[in-house]
Amino acid sequence: MAQFSDLEKAINTLVSQFHAASANNGPTLKTDEFKGLLSSQLANVVPGSSSEQGMGEILRKMGVGDGEGISFKHFWNLIQSVATSQHSVLSAQTSKCSCILL
Amino acid sequence: MAQFSDLEKAINTLVSQFHAASANNGPTLKTDEFKGLLSSQLANVVPGSSSEQGMGEILRKMGVGDGEGISFKHFWNLIQSVATSQHSVLSAQTSKCSCILL
Repeated sequence: MAQFSDLEKAINTLVSQFHAASANNGPTLKTDEFKGLLSSQLANVVPGSSSEQGMGEILRKMGVGDGEGISFKHFWNLIQSVATSQHSVLSAQTSKCSCILL
Repeated sequence: MAQFSDLEKAINTLVSQFHAASANNGPTLKTDEFKGLLSSQLANVVPGSSSEQGMGEILRKMGVGDGEGISFKHFWNLIQSVATSQHSVLSAQTSKCSCILL
């Protein structure tokens, strides 16, 4: 079996965590399933999911319509927004940084 | 210090690996720096970077213009494409899967 790099394992984690959150192994997550994923896996970087208002705001930003299931593409919009903010934080540092964000 | 989840660490890995590939800590990578990142970190999921033609094709797909530096947004296009193909592989499985891709 091939050896996989940290970056490849990271991509795998993103995909498999989304996949694992679906109880019936379906292509989209129900709002409750997604809420579980947010609170267990993204609590530090996506705050606010515990209130109904906060959750509605998060879903709107991801482009999820009312009553719609959450697709991998929706999830990816959220990950992109988190990653882009983290990247901006790093890039704004003028000194040589140690490249650790968390 | 807060505890971070596997998913948060995965996002951090994506961002910090891109950042670490820049020798001068700049906002974009030179083609050679990016090629090093591909061969050291993405060899299994993005093949073909060792030939000049293969590399040109990869950069085109990422939306990088001739002579242009590689931005985080370009890099993210590539990661998205890798993640989306991996997700499709998982979703196509009809049986309950173990959610391990690599």
